[in-house]
Amino acid sequence: MTTFGESHGAGIGAVIDGCPAGFEISEEEIQMDLDRRKPGQSHITTQRKESDTVQILSGVFEGKSQGTPIALFIPNEDAKSKDYDHLKETFRPSHADYTYQMKYGFRDHRGGGRSSARATAAVVAAGAVAKKIISHSSMAVGAFVTKVGEIESSMLNAQIEFDLEALQKISEGNIVRCPDDGVAKKMISLIEQVRKEGDTIGGVITCVIKNVPVGLGEPLFDKLQADLAKAMFSINAVHGFEYGNGFAGATKRGSENNDEFYFEEEKVKTRTNFSGGIQGGISNGMPIYFNVAFKPVATIVAAQESVNLQGDSVEVKGKGRHDPCVVPRAVPIVEAMAAIVFADHLLRNRASKI
Amino acid sequence: MTTFGESHGAGIGAVIDGCPAGFEISEEEIQMDLDRRKPGQSHITTQRKESDTVQILSGVFEGKSQGTPIALFIPNEDAKSKDYDHLKETFRPSHADYTYQMKYGFRDHRGGGRSSARATAAVVAAGAVAKKIISHSSMAVGAFVTKVGEIESSMLNAQIEFDLEALQKISEGNIVRCPDDGVAKKMISLIEQVRKEGDTIGGVITCVIKNVPVGLGEPLFDKLQADLAKAMFSINAVHGFEYGNGFAGATKRGSENNDEFYFEEEKVKTRTNFSGGIQGGISNGMPIYFNVAFKPVATIVAAQESVNLQGDSVEVKGKGRHDPCVVPRAVPIVEAMAAIVFADHLLRNRASKI
Amino acid sequence: MTTFGESHGAGIGAVIDGCPAGFEISEEEIQMDLDRRKPGQSHITTQRKESDTVQILSGVFEGKSQGTPIALFIPNEDAKSKDYDHLKETFRPSHADYTYQMKYGFRDHRGGGRSSARATAAVVAAGAVAKKIISHSSMAVGAFVTKVGEIESSMLNAQIEFDLEALQKISEGNIVRCPDDGVAKKMISLIEQVRKEGDTIGGVITCVIKNVPVGLGEPLFDKLQADLAKAMFSINAVHGFEYGNGFAGATKRGSENNDEFYFEEEKVKTRTNFSGGIQGGISNGMPIYFNVAFKPVATIVAAQESVNLQGDSVEVKGKGRHDPCVVPRAVPIVEAMAAIVFADHLLRNRASKI
Amino acid sequence: MTTFGESHGAGIGAVIDGCPAGFEISEEEIQMDLDRRKPGQSHITTQRKESDTVQILSGVFEGKSQGTPIALFIPNEDAKSKDYDHLKETFRPSHADYTYQMKYGFRDHRGGGRSSARATAAVVAAGAVAKKIISHSSMAVGAFVTKVGEIESSMLNAQIEFDLEALQKISEGNIVRCPDDGVAKKMISLIEQVRKEGDTIGGVITCVIKNVPVGLGEPLFDKLQADLAKAMFSINAVHGFEYGNGFAGATKRGSENNDEFYFEEEKVKTRTNFSGGIQGGISNGMPIYFNVAFKPVATIVAAQESVNLQGDSVEVKGKGRHDPCVVPRAVPIVEAMAAIVFADHLLRNRASKI
Repeated sequence: MTTFGESHGAGIGAVIDGCPAGFEISEEEIQMDLDRRKPGQSHITTQRKESDTVQILSGVFEGKSQGTPIALFIPNEDAKSKDYDHLKETFRPSHADYTYQMKYGFRDHRGGGRSSARATAAVVAAGAVAKKIISHSSMAVGAFVTKVGEIESSMLNAQIEFDLEALQKISEGNIVRCPDDGVAKKMISLIEQVRKEGDTIGGVITCVIKNVPVGLGEPLFDKLQADLAKAMFSINAVHGFEYGNGFAGATKRGSENNDEFYFEEEKVKTRTNFSGGIQGGISNGMPIYFNVAFKPVATIVAAQESVNLQGDSVEVKGKGRHDPCVVPRAVPIVEAMAAIVFADHLLRNRASKI
Repeated sequence: MTTFGESHGAGIGAVIDGCPAGFEISEEEIQMDLDRRKPGQSHITTQRKESDTVQILSGVFEGKSQGTPIALFIPNEDAKSKDYDHLKETFRPSHADYTYQMKYGFRDHRGGGRSSARATAAVVAAGAVAKKIISHSSMAVGAFVTKVGEIESSMLNAQIEFDLEALQKISEGNIVRCPDDGVAKKMISLIEQVRKEGDTIGGVITCVIKNVPVGLGEPLFDKLQADLAKAMFSINAVHGFEYGNGFAGATKRGSENNDEFYFEEEKVKTRTNFSGGIQGGISNGMPIYFNVAFKPVATIVAAQESVNLQGDSVEVKGKGRHDPCVVPRAVPIVEAMAAIVFADHLLRNRASKI
Repeated sequence: MTTFGESHGAGIGAVIDGCPAGFEISEEEIQMDLDRRKPGQSHITTQRKESDTVQILSGVFEGKSQGTPIALFIPNEDAKSKDYDHLKETFRPSHADYTYQMKYGFRDHRGGGRSSARATAAVVAAGAVAKKIISHSSMAVGAFVTKVGEIESSMLNAQIEFDLEALQKISEGNIVRCPDDGVAKKMISLIEQVRKEGDTIGGVITCVIKNVPVGLGEPLFDKLQADLAKAMFSINAVHGFEYGNGFAGATKRGSENNDEFYFEEEKVKTRTNFSGGIQGGISNGMPIYFNVAFKPVATIVAAQESVNLQGDSVEVKGKGRHDPCVVPRAVPIVEAMAAIVFADHLLRNRASKI
Repeated sequence: MTTFGESHGAGIGAVIDGCPAGFEISEEEIQMDLDRRKPGQSHITTQRKESDTVQILSGVFEGKSQGTPIALFIPNEDAKSKDYDHLKETFRPSHADYTYQMKYGFRDHRGGGRSSARATAAVVAAGAVAKKIISHSSMAVGAFVTKVGEIESSMLNAQIEFDLEALQKISEGNIVRCPDDGVAKKMISLIEQVRKEGDTIGGVITCVIKNVPVGLGEPLFDKLQADLAKAMFSINAVHGFEYGNGFAGATKRGSENNDEFYFEEEKVKTRTNFSGGIQGGISNGMPIYFNVAFKPVATIVAAQESVNLQGDSVEVKGKGRHDPCVVPRAVPIVEAMAAIVFADHLLRNRASKI
């Protein structure tokens, strides 16, 4: 998969090479995921207005993937470039302005250019195609918000077998996408308050994948968890990733952390699932789950100290339109990235034995 | 970089393609890092005896890299394959036995075969070459143990500018490789106790990279933190990775989490470093630091429930020779993986502008 | 570089990842090369009408490459899909109809879908960007038609130092793009005659690259000639590639084939250039030149025997609009592919030594 | 596949990643192909003595591929480095001495270092593994010498269905590996004469692959012929590649060059096979065949003009031990490269449709 596009250019897109022929792909289905990510979907997201309408430019014929590269394009619409004129030569704290300037010698200052989270819309579109591929093998991926600030859902680190459908039904029913309605209300209140204060707040998304066939993942350099981690850290604002019992596992003993095997319904299962469904980099058939930590959005209203191109000290204040908390809209991005990783490994695994 | 080799085969090795010509490379220097990883180095590690002596098979002429592939080989010596005969058809809990069996249809049961942590010796050897490349650009990488079980060093999450040399001097002076001698003692006691009980325990390694030039990392799919995360999750037993303030950042507000810029000594710096030296996937010149969480080693003495190839329930007890806690020996592995990622990005960055 | 698009879909495009920041890129400049490839440019080419107007979708800001992916798109216009209805279930001889059907289980039958030479327009667009990169290092690439059927220019296999500018001036001045006006006339007559007979004819293109810095190319698997060959065989209808004295060299003795070195103007040069400017896979600073053989276009008016999906014998006759001889329009494609290879090696070579 | 090693270092080797588990791999079988390439096998090859004994370092357990990287190593034995002392600062005409020196800043002058054709032994070893993979799908690859100097076998460009087994039986029965004993004798005489004169001569190898399943090859950038071409140009001294009717096709008309389809024995076949078994970059089930042109070996006894590092004019005379004609020993190299390309495409093709 390749993506392209900047926040305030003609648009953003993705090219998916290597999708097998024969999958039903439609703009409508891709649009459903894009709508879950698009701005302006509720009062706790940015008010930038983008319909994020996807066009399939190639690779699909008579409704089915042809085996050739699938190009997807999402034109930019509500690009208020003027909002960013005052930032042309100023580096916003904890944004990518300074690093892009230094790496490339100049930069597209409008909305962060390529570093904008807007580029993740292309990922979501490509992820919709990946979801088709993995669902053909009965796999299902679902993500939800399990933490905003200090408010935490009990689903964070629930290592037991998740009831994915039930959790998604709840989480997609509230605007913060939390799988616990009571906790969701508290999260929404917190985000509203943070927003009123012109501030932002971080959070955690938990993702679960069910019905994973045994054997996905490569022994050393393309371990399943390694590719998932890389994919998640490709998402803007992500600062942490753990799978199975993660950081908590570092405090445990082997005798309490090991997952014992048993047979049930002619399948090998584990009594616990601290391994998060992966052993030796390869899926063991149990559900795979992981947490992704997002830092708070860097754009805030309060004045901050910074410097500019000329080397002067300057004061920066957030204008533009931004999210007070990024995790509700990031749920489909996490799902898309996970689906892309699993689709890739599913196809690769076809060559693992004679 | 490519690696090869299994725990109980002829040996393990690595081929490094793309190392520029002109670096001084010697077996002695590579050996120094291997000695930090090798088994039997203290009473809190496994007693398997391997001298882990590296041979340079190609790519070095008259002491310098030629620009051609550098092949490194470490013969296996103390391979007691018989220790594993009883495991030929049994799947050890939380090991890769079951997943390898299912993926490949059969497996090398001796010491975990390719899934053995022994394969990381090849990574350490390759990392020694990568360290030469990055040190030529003045970069330095250092890792140390900051947590064993619940015992924690204050250096875990110290986001201020680390005094890397001082910390390494202390951590390399004790057998647990902790940068705080008082905490080190407690960690060693805990590991001794765990070992006596036939059990194992997890831990956390913190890694710091200094003098990173501004501009390393690619905008979207090869962000610096994404490649670091992938590299770390390629190490056996790793279950969590966070950089900058990581999971803690998910609980923070933008107003307390942003890193304000200022000028000092004609350089742009940040007052805090919650970003962990990376913004928009690209290094900003501040120190880069991250934490890696290791689960406890899966091999324990106590009897555990499991199944075998034939589908019977069986009981498994650890024999073989294994570490009670993997983190002290994993320190050079984390450093090696980090060095490899930085060397790669350093070379790639040469093509970022005209 | 990634490309996408089919003959009769929404359009075709390319995404160029890894173009350094700072190059001046404009739609006008890319268009100039596209106009040299576009259909309907003279009476000896197909009469399909496509303006082939390129749009830059991303990666360029204020007229310069940003370092981020550059996406180029060329919408399809004159797509007469109906012309192909009769071919829906028939396999045209020496086309890709049968192989696509078998590989993917179904196929876009309209104009060959992805197998259409139309996909090379995306290559030409990307090549225009690559030409900018290599011209910054003073390199120049030029191709011209040296053979049509049995009519041959003396420039075919002229291994002496070519006067590239003079040859291009002549070849771009006639519609067959031959660097010898007398020979060009004969070629044009032959193509006219072939066309009248409803037939097609093959040909050879010679390509020359000047001012190549010494040192481009990798020792074993990415030898310069290997990457050039791969690129040329990616072009539709190409059946042969030779560089330096090529197939003629197989009949020679070492004593007549070796290129002796001498100094001139403080540079190392060779007295002859049978090596074609490449030794050991690496450029030696002399001009690089190679020949590319194109088979005759497969679509002809005469009835041919074939089979269809159902397994019946059928008769196929060419409809659609096709070229009697593909080489005049293939000249910019060969140049584009060559420029892409050289741009790639130029950037890679930055990491060859300390 | 990765290879490593230089002419006069510790040895040469290959690492094969991605070989599926379950193939029977033995040192004996690999050795058989190595013996066909090894020096000193007849009086028309170099007299350098190398047993070229292969060791399997990893990836094979109980005689079968494990799915993990297979490392092969061939120690160097008869490395008379002193033979090359006089060349330390001299650039031999039409060798890679000058280009390596310029690219890397220094070079291993002993026997050409990495640029030595000795590196192809690693390719032959890896090719033996690839042959196992493709033979499992009934494919067979065979190559033979069809031209030495001006002496040509009628099998060069025989586009009819080759009787591969019969041709191999003849060609492996004579020391020049020509599939026509009468022509073989003339070739051997020519090589003997050339050798006596201290000179060298070029030649052509033809390669045929039978029982290729329909559907191998990718539409645009990894066309089967493109990957074959790249592989062949990775072999030292190769200057030309053509498949199907190749350069001769450039002189043909569509009406005489097209391959008409028909049904026979429930299979789609073509009456002629000018396409060389590939259409649109994808195999069509007919035999695939191609020609590879080798220039004469550059090392000759006669004095030649050259320059040295210091910029002086010098005279170079061949010492060392070299082949008067490289094609007899290059036959297994061509086969190995072809087998590697087909094994790769066979495994990739598993992901072409649902």
